[in-house]
Amino acid sequence: MPKPLRLGVAGVGTVGVGVLTMLRAHAERLATRCGRDVQVTAVSARDREKRRGVDLSPFEWFDDPRDLARSRDIDVFIELIGGAGDPAYSAVEAALDAGKHVVTANKALLAHHGVALAELAEARDVALKFEAAVAGGIPVVKVLRESLLGNEVARVYGILNGTSNYILTRMQHEGRAFDEVLSEAQAAGYAEADPTFDIGGQDAAHKLAILTSLAFGTQISYDSIYLEGIEQIDDVDIRSADRLGYRIKLLGVAMKTESGIEQRVHPTMVPKHTAIAEVDGVTNAITIEGDFVGDIMLVGPGAGAGPTASAVVSDITDIARGVDGAPFIVPASKLALYERAQMRAHEGGYYIRLSVYDRPGAFAAIARRMAEQEISLKSIVQSPEEGDVAQGEEGSGAPVPVVMITHRTTEAAIRRAFDAIEGDRHIDRPPKMIRIEGM
Amino acid sequence: MPKPLRLGVAGVGTVGVGVLTMLRAHAERLATRCGRDVQVTAVSARDREKRRGVDLSPFEWFDDPRDLARSRDIDVFIELIGGAGDPAYSAVEAALDAGKHVVTANKALLAHHGVALAELAEARDVALKFEAAVAGGIPVVKVLRESLLGNEVARVYGILNGTSNYILTRMQHEGRAFDEVLSEAQAAGYAEADPTFDIGGQDAAHKLAILTSLAFGTQISYDSIYLEGIEQIDDVDIRSADRLGYRIKLLGVAMKTESGIEQRVHPTMVPKHTAIAEVDGVTNAITIEGDFVGDIMLVGPGAGAGPTASAVVSDITDIARGVDGAPFIVPASKLALYERAQMRAHEGGYYIRLSVYDRPGAFAAIARRMAEQEISLKSIVQSPEEGDVAQGEEGSGAPVPVVMITHRTTEAAIRRAFDAIEGDRHIDRPPKMIRIEGM
Repeated sequence: MPKPLRLGVAGVGTVGVGVLTMLRAHAERLATRCGRDVQVTAVSARDREKRRGVDLSPFEWFDDPRDLARSRDIDVFIELIGGAGDPAYSAVEAALDAGKHVVTANKALLAHHGVALAELAEARDVALKFEAAVAGGIPVVKVLRESLLGNEVARVYGILNGTSNYILTRMQHEGRAFDEVLSEAQAAGYAEADPTFDIGGQDAAHKLAILTSLAFGTQISYDSIYLEGIEQIDDVDIRSADRLGYRIKLLGVAMKTESGIEQRVHPTMVPKHTAIAEVDGVTNAITIEGDFVGDIMLVGPGAGAGPTASAVVSDITDIARGVDGAPFIVPASKLALYERAQMRAHEGGYYIRLSVYDRPGAFAAIARRMAEQEISLKSIVQSPEEGDVAQGEEGSGAPVPVVMITHRTTEAAIRRAFDAIEGDRHIDRPPKMIRIEGM
Repeated sequence: MPKPLRLGVAGVGTVGVGVLTMLRAHAERLATRCGRDVQVTAVSARDREKRRGVDLSPFEWFDDPRDLARSRDIDVFIELIGGAGDPAYSAVEAALDAGKHVVTANKALLAHHGVALAELAEARDVALKFEAAVAGGIPVVKVLRESLLGNEVARVYGILNGTSNYILTRMQHEGRAFDEVLSEAQAAGYAEADPTFDIGGQDAAHKLAILTSLAFGTQISYDSIYLEGIEQIDDVDIRSADRLGYRIKLLGVAMKTESGIEQRVHPTMVPKHTAIAEVDGVTNAITIEGDFVGDIMLVGPGAGAGPTASAVVSDITDIARGVDGAPFIVPASKLALYERAQMRAHEGGYYIRLSVYDRPGAFAAIARRMAEQEISLKSIVQSPEEGDVAQGEEGSGAPVPVVMITHRTTEAAIRRAFDAIEGDRHIDRPPKMIRIEGM
């Protein structure tokens, strides 16, 4: 049997403990399947004394992950520190530079420095693997890198943030307001004390940036992502969507268009009775559209100690079995420049909610403004909560909600129509819009 | 750049044409990503002159696939002939024996001879790959073999036959009878002229046998699969399921139990508003339950030229990139003996439909027979089509339908209760039962 594969684990938080637990629980299974033993030999973390529920005493200890990264006693450096900056960045760089394979769960690091690190890994002929960085336990990196390698991908999209999906799901099931559900999610540990990163879409965007590069063979371009969080989703939108046959999900979408690649993270309406619409709670889901394979959807836990450990261990077993290849499939030097499609050129259907003064001519003026931009309407519902009639007396002048679903149009047309409608002063607050993904 | 990988394709039907088309359309893409050219050099099929829409003249022609398998001018033998017997079997055997890698889409061959062929591949140190044999374009073989390799799997189940799912979906959406929908599906080309293999569950069972081995590290045991097709599903069952909150799907299920491994293919009720319940039409879906990863579901096209070609090409690219390993993860000699769980030991919920003579005491007698077997009922609905009251006059003596959903019980208890109920002669035909998968 070949020599054991020796692992150094940097970062022993929830995920690190998960990885140590899984490697220990399934040591024999892994040896049989990899043809060699897989052993943790050294660890590094901020606090050696912290109670973690795992015994770290069998492992060599390093205070500084960079020293662990350079240790002669490891073959693979497992980076579970997190964050795009140091010490994670310099530790990964040190490990690659020292000729160690690297496995990381760090999406921020890859979204910001993925290509540079891939170049270094390729120059040193070592692996840089990151299955756990995107969608936790869902094996989407391997599926894109290997299973769908022969396909030209047209679009990849999905539910990439469990916290946001949990909040939207509870709003939908319980008919409750965003703030209320968020507070409870925080109390229950499903959302961070500072939830900005999740509900603002940045976490999903980090994952999307990596998926885009894998799907399209382009350089990673996190800063090009159009970003809109779920903070502005009202319960009335969720109920209106439901009546119109949709669910609202925070989606990350990357797709090829004539003007370049669109990368966007925003609340999206998807038709009810599709599998993705039924992906509830903290579960993630990703769909890949390939030219030969068609649509492949992967669904599973996007976070948590066990699922993330499973992904980290799959990278380790690939290394143990001698599986290698460029981190982003195409050698880093051959990744295409990322050409950004302008968001104004985005095409799709739109859900629009206006608060319109109920007076003669208001409605006609709005319809005219839409028509001027050649936006055609699929449905239009006044006072969606109460049926198709206004709540007050006819022409009372009080603002009433009007909800519209458009046929396919462009973001630019929608923006111009909104400007014109706002100028007409028939509405008492800015229009609200949610993009529809036509699935 | 290393030498090109030379492929010999045996069988140029729909899938073979798809593979040739994909390899040609994406030759450059594959070369960049594999680090070498991938070229078809030879083909074999029954009829050289058949019009296929692809030009076979650039390739060396073999009348007999076994001669192609032994050709010195190929590195990989692509078996797209089909069928568990010859010539597919002897051709694959010849290729492996001659030291060629083999890629096959042939589920029947693997379900019957997979382990023997794996032994031969391992002895010759070549790859035997079969992503396309299970669920078409869905990369479930790779996910089980590689992504979830570190997990102990408790259960794998899914919608493995597109034709059956298409028929059940149309019955559900249109409220129509099985025979009617089947005839239309045949006319439209969604079902074969002889549909037995699909609707009887054998096709799903072939795939399940392979999944079971990958998931549990056991020898393939096709003959141990409990098999029940969808021929007996009435539209009344579909409507009753709907009212009770379920959909009916033909599932293949393999799971560990205390008495061994259960392998079964049968119509199954799954709760509405789960992602698998929304998998409609010819789409396939597979869920894998791992001890660390939790539940991973993969959804996609289970058949067709493009999806199947995508899977075949992914196997080819693995070989081109030098990825190898035992066909069933664990070396064939170390695959555990398959221990079959008895179907009577199966535990789960049951949907039961009885046609009960509407007379005093009938209902009480049935309830008593269930209670004797310690089967507790979750819900019971008389005349499910008409609400909770009998259609005729009370006690008219005419048979009325009664539908029950049980809590968790055993198959043995259900069978004993049925025997007792039939003996009591309060029903006018044998009881009908559909198992519920508790998801």
